[in-house]
Amino acid sequence: MSFQNLQSFKHTLIIGASKPKMILWILFNIIFFKSAIPYPSIFKSFILKLFGANLGIKIVFKPCINIKFPWKLSIGDYCWIGENVWIDNLDFVIIEDNVCISQGAFLLTGNHNYKKQSFDLETGPINLKSGVWIGAKAIICPNVICNKNAVLCVNAVAKKNLSENTVYTGDPALPVRKRIS
Amino acid sequence: MSFQNLQSFKHTLIIGASKPKMILWILFNIIFFKSAIPYPSIFKSFILKLFGANLGIKIVFKPCINIKFPWKLSIGDYCWIGENVWIDNLDFVIIEDNVCISQGAFLLTGNHNYKKQSFDLETGPINLKSGVWIGAKAIICPNVICNKNAVLCVNAVAKKNLSENTVYTGDPALPVRKRIS
Amino acid sequence: MSFQNLQSFKHTLIIGASKPKMILWILFNIIFFKSAIPYPSIFKSFILKLFGANLGIKIVFKPCINIKFPWKLSIGDYCWIGENVWIDNLDFVIIEDNVCISQGAFLLTGNHNYKKQSFDLETGPINLKSGVWIGAKAIICPNVICNKNAVLCVNAVAKKNLSENTVYTGDPALPVRKRIS
Repeated sequence: MSFQNLQSFKHTLIIGASKPKMILWILFNIIFFKSAIPYPSIFKSFILKLFGANLGIKIVFKPCINIKFPWKLSIGDYCWIGENVWIDNLDFVIIEDNVCISQGAFLLTGNHNYKKQSFDLETGPINLKSGVWIGAKAIICPNVICNKNAVLCVNAVAKKNLSENTVYTGDPALPVRKRIS
Repeated sequence: MSFQNLQSFKHTLIIGASKPKMILWILFNIIFFKSAIPYPSIFKSFILKLFGANLGIKIVFKPCINIKFPWKLSIGDYCWIGENVWIDNLDFVIIEDNVCISQGAFLLTGNHNYKKQSFDLETGPINLKSGVWIGAKAIICPNVICNKNAVLCVNAVAKKNLSENTVYTGDPALPVRKRIS
Repeated sequence: MSFQNLQSFKHTLIIGASKPKMILWILFNIIFFKSAIPYPSIFKSFILKLFGANLGIKIVFKPCINIKFPWKLSIGDYCWIGENVWIDNLDFVIIEDNVCISQGAFLLTGNHNYKKQSFDLETGPINLKSGVWIGAKAIICPNVICNKNAVLCVNAVAKKNLSENTVYTGDPALPVRKRIS
């Protein structure tokens, strides 16, 4: 017996956009976001807003960013989205102010129920509160809240919520020290 | 003394294809597989078969996949190959039925003998049995067999065989629980 | 209170090249290095030298390499730079002879002072001594020296210096055995 019978999988994901909008976004994502050409951040903000993203001011978007659904994305003021960051937001990703997501970081919102043959997709939102720093190549798992000023070190994997003003490292990410000035 | 004297390295890899076929595959890999354009999976299956892959039915191929040698690839029925999956199959990769390889996973089949100055390439096959789920950004090392219904969690690194119906996490991947329905 | 107030961030990075040179390099990096087309290594060496890299002989450059600043890069003789290697050298990266950097490895030279509101950028050089092998998907952090013949295994993260003739694994990378022939 196979646990996952992928033939029995049902597409239950609510995309949240019409098919033409989805196709158009795939194109714009390729041309302006996944591209290595350093288009101005303000231009990228403009495009994301056209597709329904809720964006603050002065957000920096580096090249080679991959965003799944802009209409499920909210970013506050003065945030940085680094090179090769992958926001795989099948579900909502809410980023508050002054958040830095360093290069190569990965925000994962999808999971599967591996106990069911139908291998149901289960999505969960991600919430990065103000002042959070996600280190290079770090990973945030679905349903994770990173509380204010939390730091996730390079390559760490946040599988549970991160506490305020705390520095985390490793897989799974564990607290190593307080963030003090 | 330097252990690895890369000047003395000998190319011993058996590519398993003629030079024109190899060059053509590099082109097709770039145009149809590494591309972010979502070409239909059935079309990608057709191309892979032309190049000698042994494929079952209803395989889903997401965009941005990197495959080294299709003629050393076998995939069963109802499998999913996620976005940004990298099948670096210098050696044979045998994937059975109902296997899910999530986004960003990496199948590594090459190693070097670091005890020899000639730094000999040593390849090893990978075998993913039916019902296996390889999580996002997970890594499978050479010579690893993932037995039926094994689950490798996000970011985990399988350096040894995975047992049936067992969930693994971490680097190196260690068993954390049974997969029960 | 937010620790990092990204509005107050000052760009202190010394790029080390004129703006036209920087823009030209971004283009050449996209066209010849990040590209999946397997241009000859000798041609890539030629281009890197034009941009101020200090290179030895017989260096192998695989496709899909991302280099930040060639004028802050030095590579000795008989080195290999694997596919999808990312040399994010805001600071100097000095690679000696017979060094192998395997596919997907990441050299990180930037950090931020997370104790300061201004979130100051702090860069640190990386030095890979002769005979070092950086495994696939491994990460080197700023200010790290990998001493002669050190081996960093697949997916490991070097946060401190690696000792001579020693094999390291994990995050953070810890010594597991001596490298003996």
